Amino acid sequence: MFYHDNKLQYKVRVDKPNPAFANMLQQAIGGIEGEIRVCLQYLFQAWGSRGPQKYRDMLMETGTEEIAHIEMLATAVALNLEGAPMSMKDEMAKDQVIGAVMGGMNPRHVLSSGLAAMAVDSNGVPFNGSWVVGSGNLAADMYANVMAESTGRLLATRLWEATDDTGMKDMLAFLIARDTMHQNQWLAVLEELGGLNGVHPIPNSFPQTEENQENNYNFVSTRVNDMDGTAERMRNARWGNGTSMDGKGTFTVTPAMPKGDVPQLAPPDPRGHAQVEQMTGSDGSLLDKAKNIL
Amino acid sequence: MFYHDNKLQYKVRVDKPNPAFANMLQQAIGGIEGEIRVCLQYLFQAWGSRGPQKYRDMLMETGTEEIAHIEMLATAVALNLEGAPMSMKDEMAKDQVIGAVMGGMNPRHVLSSGLAAMAVDSNGVPFNGSWVVGSGNLAADMYANVMAESTGRLLATRLWEATDDTGMKDMLAFLIARDTMHQNQWLAVLEELGGLNGVHPIPNSFPQTEENQENNYNFVSTRVNDMDGTAERMRNARWGNGTSMDGKGTFTVTPAMPKGDVPQLAPPDPRGHAQVEQMTGSDGSLLDKAKNIL
Amino acid sequence: MFYHDNKLQYKVRVDKPNPAFANMLQQAIGGIEGEIRVCLQYLFQAWGSRGPQKYRDMLMETGTEEIAHIEMLATAVALNLEGAPMSMKDEMAKDQVIGAVMGGMNPRHVLSSGLAAMAVDSNGVPFNGSWVVGSGNLAADMYANVMAESTGRLLATRLWEATDDTGMKDMLAFLIARDTMHQNQWLAVLEELGGLNGVHPIPNSFPQTEENQENNYNFVSTRVNDMDGTAERMRNARWGNGTSMDGKGTFTVTPAMPKGDVPQLAPPDPRGHAQVEQMTGSDGSLLDKAKNIL
Amino acid sequence: MFYHDNKLQYKVRVDKPNPAFANMLQQAIGGIEGEIRVCLQYLFQAWGSRGPQKYRDMLMETGTEEIAHIEMLATAVALNLEGAPMSMKDEMAKDQVIGAVMGGMNPRHVLSSGLAAMAVDSNGVPFNGSWVVGSGNLAADMYANVMAESTGRLLATRLWEATDDTGMKDMLAFLIARDTMHQNQWLAVLEELGGLNGVHPIPNSFPQTEENQENNYNFVSTRVNDMDGTAERMRNARWGNGTSMDGKGTFTVTPAMPKGDVPQLAPPDPRGHAQVEQMTGSDGSLLDKAKNIL
Amino acid sequence: MFYHDNKLQYKVRVDKPNPAFANMLQQAIGGIEGEIRVCLQYLFQAWGSRGPQKYRDMLMETGTEEIAHIEMLATAVALNLEGAPMSMKDEMAKDQVIGAVMGGMNPRHVLSSGLAAMAVDSNGVPFNGSWVVGSGNLAADMYANVMAESTGRLLATRLWEATDDTGMKDMLAFLIARDTMHQNQWLAVLEELGGLNGVHPIPNSFPQTEENQENNYNFVSTRVNDMDGTAERMRNARWGNGTSMDGKGTFTVTPAMPKGDVPQLAPPDPRGHAQVEQMTGSDGSLLDKAKNIL
Amino acid sequence: MFYHDNKLQYKVRVDKPNPAFANMLQQAIGGIEGEIRVCLQYLFQAWGSRGPQKYRDMLMETGTEEIAHIEMLATAVALNLEGAPMSMKDEMAKDQVIGAVMGGMNPRHVLSSGLAAMAVDSNGVPFNGSWVVGSGNLAADMYANVMAESTGRLLATRLWEATDDTGMKDMLAFLIARDTMHQNQWLAVLEELGGLNGVHPIPNSFPQTEENQENNYNFVSTRVNDMDGTAERMRNARWGNGTSMDGKGTFTVTPAMPKGDVPQLAPPDPRGHAQVEQMTGSDGSLLDKAKNIL
Repeated sequence: MFYHDNKLQYKVRVDKPNPAFANMLQQAIGGIEGEIRVCLQYLFQAWGSRGPQKYRDMLMETGTEEIAHIEMLATAVALNLEGAPMSMKDEMAKDQVIGAVMGGMNPRHVLSSGLAAMAVDSNGVPFNGSWVVGSGNLAADMYANVMAESTGRLLATRLWEATDDTGMKDMLAFLIARDTMHQNQWLAVLEELGGLNGVHPIPNSFPQTEENQENNYNFVSTRVNDMDGTAERMRNARWGNGTSMDGKGTFTVTPAMPKGDVPQLAPPDPRGHAQVEQMTGSDGSLLDKAKNIL
Repeated sequence: MFYHDNKLQYKVRVDKPNPAFANMLQQAIGGIEGEIRVCLQYLFQAWGSRGPQKYRDMLMETGTEEIAHIEMLATAVALNLEGAPMSMKDEMAKDQVIGAVMGGMNPRHVLSSGLAAMAVDSNGVPFNGSWVVGSGNLAADMYANVMAESTGRLLATRLWEATDDTGMKDMLAFLIARDTMHQNQWLAVLEELGGLNGVHPIPNSFPQTEENQENNYNFVSTRVNDMDGTAERMRNARWGNGTSMDGKGTFTVTPAMPKGDVPQLAPPDPRGHAQVEQMTGSDGSLLDKAKNIL
Repeated sequence: MFYHDNKLQYKVRVDKPNPAFANMLQQAIGGIEGEIRVCLQYLFQAWGSRGPQKYRDMLMETGTEEIAHIEMLATAVALNLEGAPMSMKDEMAKDQVIGAVMGGMNPRHVLSSGLAAMAVDSNGVPFNGSWVVGSGNLAADMYANVMAESTGRLLATRLWEATDDTGMKDMLAFLIARDTMHQNQWLAVLEELGGLNGVHPIPNSFPQTEENQENNYNFVSTRVNDMDGTAERMRNARWGNGTSMDGKGTFTVTPAMPKGDVPQLAPPDPRGHAQVEQMTGSDGSLLDKAKNIL
Repeated sequence: MFYHDNKLQYKVRVDKPNPAFANMLQQAIGGIEGEIRVCLQYLFQAWGSRGPQKYRDMLMETGTEEIAHIEMLATAVALNLEGAPMSMKDEMAKDQVIGAVMGGMNPRHVLSSGLAAMAVDSNGVPFNGSWVVGSGNLAADMYANVMAESTGRLLATRLWEATDDTGMKDMLAFLIARDTMHQNQWLAVLEELGGLNGVHPIPNSFPQTEENQENNYNFVSTRVNDMDGTAERMRNARWGNGTSMDGKGTFTVTPAMPKGDVPQLAPPDPRGHAQVEQMTGSDGSLLDKAKNIL
Repeated sequence: MFYHDNKLQYKVRVDKPNPAFANMLQQAIGGIEGEIRVCLQYLFQAWGSRGPQKYRDMLMETGTEEIAHIEMLATAVALNLEGAPMSMKDEMAKDQVIGAVMGGMNPRHVLSSGLAAMAVDSNGVPFNGSWVVGSGNLAADMYANVMAESTGRLLATRLWEATDDTGMKDMLAFLIARDTMHQNQWLAVLEELGGLNGVHPIPNSFPQTEENQENNYNFVSTRVNDMDGTAERMRNARWGNGTSMDGKGTFTVTPAMPKGDVPQLAPPDPRGHAQVEQMTGSDGSLLDKAKNIL
Repeated sequence: MFYHDNKLQYKVRVDKPNPAFANMLQQAIGGIEGEIRVCLQYLFQAWGSRGPQKYRDMLMETGTEEIAHIEMLATAVALNLEGAPMSMKDEMAKDQVIGAVMGGMNPRHVLSSGLAAMAVDSNGVPFNGSWVVGSGNLAADMYANVMAESTGRLLATRLWEATDDTGMKDMLAFLIARDTMHQNQWLAVLEELGGLNGVHPIPNSFPQTEENQENNYNFVSTRVNDMDGTAERMRNARWGNGTSMDGKGTFTVTPAMPKGDVPQLAPPDPRGHAQVEQMTGSDGSLLDKAKNIL
């Protein structure tokens, strides 16, 4: 179960409130790269964890830490909204800076939340539970987590560039640091699980003898012509020759070539009410099975 | 630009149509682990690619291949729906197998698509463009791609387990193989970009001197008590001690401890119309700035 | 403004309640082919109508009628849910028909609505306002409406096939009839607006001299090879030769051929924090503009 | 900030796993009546709280408790999925109970999560951040919370009815009890804020002299005729006569009557490319401002 | 069934069109606090109403009134969009007021609707049917309705503050008044149903003897430490002592304490293809049931 | 299967990058009127095509062409974002044009994609798979396609008006031309299928004798009064008299009149836990079936 404290994990200070920056911070709260996503992702992975206990423990710790990050960012949004323009009245015409701010604001920060953070991204698109990945396969989940912390740290550095508020830069420098740790931490699990060779192909519990072994290490090139030497570039790249990354095959490059047939579906079921013309033979007469419907 | 052929990339055969399996296959078409997602993800990454040309080329090739995978799966769905029950009439009471099938079917396969695939997952939830990740950072994108191919291959092996139709198993064995290659291929780019040490922390273009260096390699433990020795387990794990995976720090474990203050927001802006009681001082009198609204 | 009556537009009778059919009916309420969509679509088109008054009047009349259709279907859902199984306990094992029904039910009819209709489709996916099309162009809107009534009538005939309840068939026969009228009605507007020749290309207020006149009446074939004579079939079809449907051009068939260049994007903006490797020249050295970030 | 424990708030025991019940439990996790919603709702209200500190404290306490409820339910889902059928192969034909279970299962519990809970409802529709209400007005928020706990307790009692697993009934009896407390708790705040008379109309900080005082306490009847005496019933009901609930007006009943005009919009802006026919005067000639576009 | 009139329920006048305000008004149309939501909510509650007839009648009346409110707001949006800038060309650089307006506009008002209202909120997020609450429990629904009218009136007062257009202020003063009535009206039903004591805990038809009676009236405090006296504040608040609001218990405050165990899930089902490392015992050897898959 | 080329279908040139226009272009990529929608719509219709082969072929060709249109637009977005402001720092206050641009930008173009296109519309709302219509009825699908190309061409002409960049206008003139062809092409299929008389009512495979023939060609007027002669206008319009468009009936106008009864639902199932007051008879005593729950 869970407990809380009345203090923040790290200090949140806004020297000069900026409602447009408040909107940008929403991306780090309710966006696909944001903290609600990683929080729920790690917690759901923990709650569904099957296998060695220590991975469950680890996910629980970091999932809990992430709640505190949502809290920090929600506080930062509210502080950036202090004194925000509440109307479309005269401000927009009179003051250029306010006009620009209003263009960058989320109107729902005024209309819906009363100058507080919401569970939405910087376009006002609500957080979506489909982003919470927990696959039951520990290695797949670790990649989902590395990916989340990579786009998360990327977002935080972009927010850091987007502001010159000292307080905000300090808070973001903290969050950037935590993302550094979290990237490393999920990578550490992948090492424990055997590294590239032990982990891949994910899932490593499916016998590779059952996969189609003529097509599991060849780069398929779909280029119709090759006037600029792409094929050559592909063959010379790391993925075009040599041992595969998982150590279990050899990379080759092959041109795309259909191995299947022209697909043929049956005529429509009459009860599905396609047009009659879809239910006639090549001689224009109605197919037998369609006769009883007309 | 793009071209097509009238044949499938690989043969799609259904020996015994199963509408409930048709529904399961939808996960591989319109689900977050599915082929529309990877197709658009690789193509959007290619179209927005900045930096060395060969990565754009590579993404384009594989993005194009994925369209053919959607096509194969859409064909498989349609073939599994041949002869599906079109009504709730008597079948359900009469035949146990049909009853079970109907329970597992997507009613929209009858009502909306006329026995054909749709751009939805196995719960009928529509494909969502938010799943298409292209961050502008090549390494972050490669992790997004490894993750997509890991959950994708996992899904395909689960579908393989869920059917005993020889044709379907053969098609899935092909798709599983392609996912093996694609996992390897994105990992190959990460190696080219410098491996763990060169790539992390992502983005590697943000100077680590600017991140909070007291908090970038410590595992934060949020446990309130530790009767079962979790802390010890954490300290002994790969992420609790030794050199970090990126080679740029040393892992430690520290207990969670608030470094910030109790957050303090200003009273509400009267024009935002909080309740009056939110705009009174500790002595119960109305705050000055709220006086003019009542 | 709007008024109501306490009776239904047409009688709704359910002889034998069927909770699985109740779920199917949801498609006609909250689905993309359903009545909430057409109701809001016609009303929003009316409320935003610019131009001759009679089109606004007409849209208003039919938009209002559609509210009564939602009402009829919502009533039909509730009646089909009378006596539905409320539990997962023993029923499912004991009774085959109930088992089948439960498989086809929407569990939220029990859990969320207390045996009543909801604003969702037959997969439980909520109605989505993005489906409400009102473009400001009357002809485009009429096509949106013909399309809505075509998929709507198609859905209603499929529901008619899916039940043998006399009451339900009677109600659906009424709704099918109304959709016949509504298809005709929107087509009548298109005739008033000038028919194919007067209406197309939509919008007819954009001067065709400004569109690219080398590419406005040619069917583009993207086939990479043509072993089965598709090109010939295309050339012989109505869209492959002769006068175009709008009477303003002549159909031809041309093979797909790139007219554009290989796209070239600038290197990443350093403040967007791509990987360093994306910001190096072909000699491996850091691009000038990236130097100040590291 | 936040902490956790390795134990559950209350015991979670499943005597006989039931994958269909696992799916039903998802409604209490990721549904609009579920625990993710109340958890985030109370926390976001706390983080954006402006006014007396004790309300922030209270929201924080209960928001934190709700995380533990998600945890309990996620655990219950995983336990109900132990041993669930992983395939569509032969089971469905052979065993009636399994067939029924499969009809009621969420296929993504097999395909996507590996037999664990997800952030979705019992239709597989993902949790949606738009459900997290925090308005900045404490009284409005308290009603949002009473409402959430009312539909939440209702859902829990329906789940209690739907199972006869002793362990599950015990867990649900705990959650039902907590919802009893939470309903009471938010109502207590409303009493502290002044009860019906002090609180309403919400927001109580908008001067009622500014609202339209001819229309603020009359029940508007939109009935076109009244053959069954509805008007009489309305006049005799609590909302049809006597002092209003907020004590600030007197209820009356008035028939609906338009007080506004027929709306008149300007002709389309030519650059918006309506059809030409929308831009002609009553004499059929093109409006002046449309002339320059053709 | 439903009827309409060609006039508006109340006059809608825009003295000075403002496209940015048009966008704000969208929140009152397609937002979660908006009129489409209450309209559908009351109508669906009416259509699914079980129990005394007068509640159905009442819901029908007000649901029908709300359609007229959508109409008024849609008209207001269209009028505020008259003369809106149609391009990004030179205006933005030349005129500061237009620049600000464009920043606050919804580009889809130009691109998608041709200067008319859409079924979206002020972020352009489409109306979502999940917001339509009808639970089958009359008291829960009344709270949902009070809540909707509370956030609805709050929104309307914020829009009133955001404009100084006399026509818009007059229209909003009417809508604010109607929301006053509607809050009172739903509260009147709650009084008829027995007030706090009769109504709660909702649902009042679940025997409280079946809920966990040790945990139904205690405020759970999740604070890990209490340096600022929160616990004391909680104990002294209305929800910390004395008779509960429903009159059926006595409030107490108790510290959070786990009553459950450490959750233990079974190892993964091999057919779900977790990583092999998740299917090994503590001695590192493969679990029996996993052996047959590798 | 599918192939690609490294060149664009048509040249994409941006003379003066404009990040606000980049945002507008997103509507043509990820919006409901956009290219991802038509691309997937035509491909899914092809993949599910049942009936004459040539329609499948045709859909495949044009579906493939549309991928190239997404590519062109994604390239245009990236080019319009070159040099976009990356921060909220000082720019907004200093430069009016930049301020206006920032107001019109999508912040996620900076924060999430690193100055590249995304699978979202011009409000940042993600592409939604529900927009992909493929009904199994060829005629209904052709109307869906005409409608898509009508709103698509409308959107493109509005984008053309919104820019004065010569390169962008040239690209849009090409896309507008292609939409002209595509409108004509789908109309040609409708002619092949028999024109209005042969095609309607859709589906033409449902025997009209089974629809309610008293209500299939009458325009229903829901007006409560008619002071301005609407009824007369309706009777004189094309849809108010004469032969119906499908040639199978005669248009009439009839006033709305309820043909159904007042709906009557059963009392609530006690296990669904409505309020007790909903389960009492008119004499106030508990209904028999509710007695056992209290």
